[in-house]
Order: sequence, then structure tokens, then C-alpha cells
Amino acid sequence: MASQRVTPMRTVEWHEGKVRMIDQRLLPWDLKLVEFDDYRLVAQSISNMTVRGAPAIGAAAAFGLALAAYQSEANDITGFLADLETAAFALRKARPTAVNLSWGLERLMQKITNAGGATISELRSIVLKESQRIADQDVAINKRIAEYGAALLKDHDTILHHCNTGALATVDWGTAIGVIRTAHEQGKHNHVLVNETRPRLQGARLTAWELTQYGISFEIIADSAAGYFMQSGEVDCVLVGSDRTAANGDVANKIGTYPIAVVARENSIPFYAVVPTSSVDLSLESGSNIPIEERDPAEVRTPYGFAIFPDNYPVRNPAFDVTPHAYVTAFVTEFGVIWPPFDLNLPIAVSNGSVEVPGTL
Amino acid sequence: MASQRVTPMRTVEWHEGKVRMIDQRLLPWDLKLVEFDDYRLVAQSISNMTVRGAPAIGAAAAFGLALAAYQSEANDITGFLADLETAAFALRKARPTAVNLSWGLERLMQKITNAGGATISELRSIVLKESQRIADQDVAINKRIAEYGAALLKDHDTILHHCNTGALATVDWGTAIGVIRTAHEQGKHNHVLVNETRPRLQGARLTAWELTQYGISFEIIADSAAGYFMQSGEVDCVLVGSDRTAANGDVANKIGTYPIAVVARENSIPFYAVVPTSSVDLSLESGSNIPIEERDPAEVRTPYGFAIFPDNYPVRNPAFDVTPHAYVTAFVTEFGVIWPPFDLNLPIAVSNGSVEVPGTL
Repeated sequence: MASQRVTPMRTVEWHEGKVRMIDQRLLPWDLKLVEFDDYRLVAQSISNMTVRGAPAIGAAAAFGLALAAYQSEANDITGFLADLETAAFALRKARPTAVNLSWGLERLMQKITNAGGATISELRSIVLKESQRIADQDVAINKRIAEYGAALLKDHDTILHHCNTGALATVDWGTAIGVIRTAHEQGKHNHVLVNETRPRLQGARLTAWELTQYGISFEIIADSAAGYFMQSGEVDCVLVGSDRTAANGDVANKIGTYPIAVVARENSIPFYAVVPTSSVDLSLESGSNIPIEERDPAEVRTPYGFAIFPDNYPVRNPAFDVTPHAYVTAFVTEFGVIWPPFDLNLPIAVSNGSVEVPGTL
Repeated sequence: MASQRVTPMRTVEWHEGKVRMIDQRLLPWDLKLVEFDDYRLVAQSISNMTVRGAPAIGAAAAFGLALAAYQSEANDITGFLADLETAAFALRKARPTAVNLSWGLERLMQKITNAGGATISELRSIVLKESQRIADQDVAINKRIAEYGAALLKDHDTILHHCNTGALATVDWGTAIGVIRTAHEQGKHNHVLVNETRPRLQGARLTAWELTQYGISFEIIADSAAGYFMQSGEVDCVLVGSDRTAANGDVANKIGTYPIAVVARENSIPFYAVVPTSSVDLSLESGSNIPIEERDPAEVRTPYGFAIFPDNYPVRNPAFDVTPHAYVTAFVTEFGVIWPPFDLNLPIAVSNGSVEVPGTL
């Protein structure tokens, strides 16, 4: 059955006092679980992309903080809170671009602040419970997003997709790929053009693996071929995720998203960003202040251990780009589809927890 | 000295009765020459990209036809011409998109047609001489193109480049990369952002190798990062080649060229196609009739022998796309820089062998 979980577990979860996750670096070849009993290893697993995807690393960081709460050997609340602050700092700086890391950690720290008078033991269980709630809510939110998004897809639409936004990028179900899964369950026959997504090949390795499990039709293409397929009329819409969305609708997402959006608009193809509102950062007026992570040149040079050119050739490796809001057709969120003007409608939706202004395409 | 040849030979040449070429599949690791004494192997070397680049495969096909002339065991002119037609057919169909294959072969067949009354032995030497002239002219033309192109580059410009258009893509010197070499010899300090150019990585493997030899500053980027660098203001102009240019200025070039052109225009970055006029196909009114080669999925799946995803994942692999002329700022040719309107100025330049309408940028 298509709706069954194809992984033996969630992408990341709390398991018998440890943080357990799928090691995404080994897919599509091996489905292997790893467990961590030290928050510093969780931070490392985020940096080295054992776990990736904005919602998934948000949950991983939250569980990492729960781990830190149990690791702390402090005897008083002051020491305990200091330990948590240290852990939150380490987890937050594991990756700079996705806002979900900060968002989840701040939510936990707020919960602790609000629990004045609680014992260390009580605080531990508050942090754990809240991190589990973050994970559960991620799944529920993704399913709501998927319902709204699936309504935008017609039977037999071909969807261009970048990076991985499936179950593996979230706690479960997925955002953009979650939309396609729900449409698939509704009986729609869609086809996905999967950008391989250099340098780390999340499309070719993770998205293709997921779509194979779900029985959804797809083809892998080189990232540079996306323009050809958009120009030739084979693409009905583009679905992507977002690692951080500014208040005006500018979208920071996996490197290569921006050129897709520009070419989509040039060819009058709808470009939808599929996002939980937790990835909307209302503190940023526009995308120009979103920090863009530059990662190790080895990702470009030596994809998965195989050198494609010598060590001494210089490399630049930005991991994200910012798509200005003018190229975004709409946001698909857990509160509904948000249409322009985004600088008006995004803050309203996020603050009110509902889409107040119905779309007029 | 920067002007010295860095390869021990031309990319492709006639050598002691054989066709000799650099096996470009082995770079940047090994610089190895291969020799063929059968035109069918030359056709295969074009198909399997031992030699690639529109001007280089044009010369390779011409030398292949010379080989066929010496291979022919026909006793009369009719049989000899039939053998040449057979060989020309095989060489022409080795790759469909670049026009240079047809162009070079037609030029040779025309030469033979014009040599009525010649003996088989005389015809052999006519074909060989003409194929050598094609190769020599390619080098001379590239150097003229490079002079015109270098005048467009300012000191310290950063140039975005796709695929490989250097000595390896031609008989020698190069087209777009030839422009950068000439600017370098003129003392300009330019920097090249090298698109790795998936699936076959001609940028990361061939262009980076060449630029290293020439001492020209460069950085390799994933193709999907080109948009980021154009958007961030780091790119002063784009230089690419063309495998076939229609009469109206539509450019068929390596897959990924079209989205670069769209994003360049969006960011007001000049986009120059650097082309010998032999790659202009005046018989085509627009680019919509240029045949686009779809190549083996293994190029995407198993770059240079290393599988990045399983065999059963489906793949699309178009090797070229067409950039509509509206995105092309100008053509740099051996007759000078050709500005819009291209449907007027390209045919005039090609027919007259000169640029009649001076540019007014």
C-alpha cells in the first residue's frame, strides 16, 4: 500500500534514550540506522549531512537538546541551563541556512523558561516531550500541506523537483514530495523529473530512492537539463522546498533553485515553494540577509569518494541560493496556499495560523 | 610562455597515414594519444567522445574521410566515390547536433566533385590536402576570433564558462576559451568560473585542465551554482561556444547553456556565443529544427565508471539545448563581433565573409 511507511522508522526519532536516524549518506545503496548518545555527535551528524532537510534537522537538533538535558551532570538549575545553552549553541551552528534549527531550539528553550520552579528531572522530561511534539507535529503538518498541494496537481502533470523534500528531508511524509505522494494516493498519475542535485546528489540518490519505494513514476536528469525540459513544454509545474523563507517571500533553498525559478517564469510554468510555516523567518524582511553556507570543496571534487578531478583544482561550493519572491507563484503551507502579495499574506498567515486572503491566481 | 602549445600535438591531426587524436576521456588524469587507420574507428571515436567539441569533430570527420580515401580498394572512380559516400554517411551520423561534421564532409565531397578527370590517387591527395586545410584554417580562425573576443574583456573580468571550448574542443587554441587565452596573453587578469558540466564533466575535467596549463585563474562550480554567482554580481560576462547556430541566431550548445543565458539576461550580464561561422547553419531559419542528441543514460548514472545510483532508476540525457537568439548579446566570429538583429547580420557576415554592420551596443 502506497501509504505505508517504506522506512522502518522515522527519518529521525528518540529511541530508548538515544537519538536514532537514517544515515542518508549511504542511500540508495544501504538503509542503515545510526544512534547517538551525545548531543555533540548529533550536531556533527547535522554538519556532515548524515541527516539533512530543513524540517529533519530541526527535529534532530531538538532531540539533540533533549539528549543534552539527560547528559548534563549539573547539580543546580543554573548549571543545567548553562549546559543546555552550550548544547543549543553547538546544535544551532551545525548549519547556518535553514531556520528550522534555531526555530526548534528556541521553542524548547522557551518551554524551559516558562517552566519556572521545575526540577532538573522535570525539565528533562519537558524538553524530551516538547522535542517529540515537534517531531509529531512535523508529520501532521506535512500531511496537511500535502492535501493543499495535491489540489494544485492535475492528473498526468509532470513535476520538476529539485533536491530531496520527501520523508527523508522531514520527520516523515515530506513537503514537496509529500504533495506528490498525496496526489498519488488520490489516484493521480503524475511524473517527476528529478534533478540529480549536484554536488551531493540528493535528487538522484534520495528522491529517486523514495519515489521508487512509493511506486511514483520519475526520471533522473542532470541539473543543467531542467531548462531543456521546461522549454520543451514537458514540465507542468515546479515543486521545491525552502530552508528559510523571508517575510517578503524570498526563498533560500538548495543551490540551483534560483535558476529553475527564473526559467520557469520565462516559460510560464508555476513555481511552488512547499513549506511548513516554521521555515518562514518573519524577522528577515528579505532574503538578502539569509546566510549562505559554503561547504567543503570535496563535495564537488569527490562525490561519494570518487575523485572527478585533481585536488589542486580550486572549487567554490555554495550550498544554497535565494530565489526572489517575484519568481514564486505561491507557497503551499499547512494553513493553505498563499498567493502574492507575499509581504502582506505570508506574515498574516504565519501570525494568524490561517490563510486569511484567499488566492486569486 | 603562455603562447606555447601545452599539448604535444593538436587535438586531432593526420600523422603518418593515420588519424591521431588525444583521448579526451582520460583527462585530466592521463594525456594519451590514440591512432586510427580505419575511418569506422574515427566515427566511433566521435560517437564515444574520445574527441568532442564541434570544431574538433569537424576536423576529425574530415581526416576520417581522408582515411577512407586511402582505405578504398576500388579500381574505378565510381567505386571509389561510392566508398567515400559510405564513409561520409558513417562519419556524419556519428553525432547529430553539431553542424561542423556535415560542413567539413560536404566541403571535401565538393572538392572531389570539382576535380573531374582526376585519378583515384590524385583524389586521395586532394581529400587529404583539403582535410589538412580545414584543420589549419580552424586554428587560424580561432586566433582571429580570439582577437575580436579579447577586446570585449576588461582587465579583472570574471567570466562564466560552460563545457569545454578550448584547444581540446578545436584543432587548437579554442573558441570561447581561446578568447580568454588571448586576453591572458595581452596581460589581462581574468578569472573563469568553470561550470563542471554534467553529465560528462567537460568543464571540471577538460577546461580546468587546460586553464591550469595556461596559468589562468579559475574555480570549478556545480552547474547549478552558476545562477548564484550571476545573481551575486560576481560574473561580468558569459562566454560559450555553439554546436550549431541557426540563421536567426538561435544557438544549440551543450545542455545547460539555455538556463545560463536566461539567468544572464535577468541579471543584465552579457552573454556571448563564440563561434567560427562554419557552425552557422543558414539552411535553418530557427533553432527549433536542430536535432537534439539524447545520449546513453549511463553518462548520468555512471560518470567515469562510478555508479551514483542503481541501474534501474530511469534517466533522460539530452546532450544539447537551444538558446533562443533573444538571450544572445552578440556572436564573436572570425569576421568580427556580430550584434543584433542576428537574422539580418548573421547571414550577411557569413555570406560576405565580413561584418558589414558595425555593432552599436
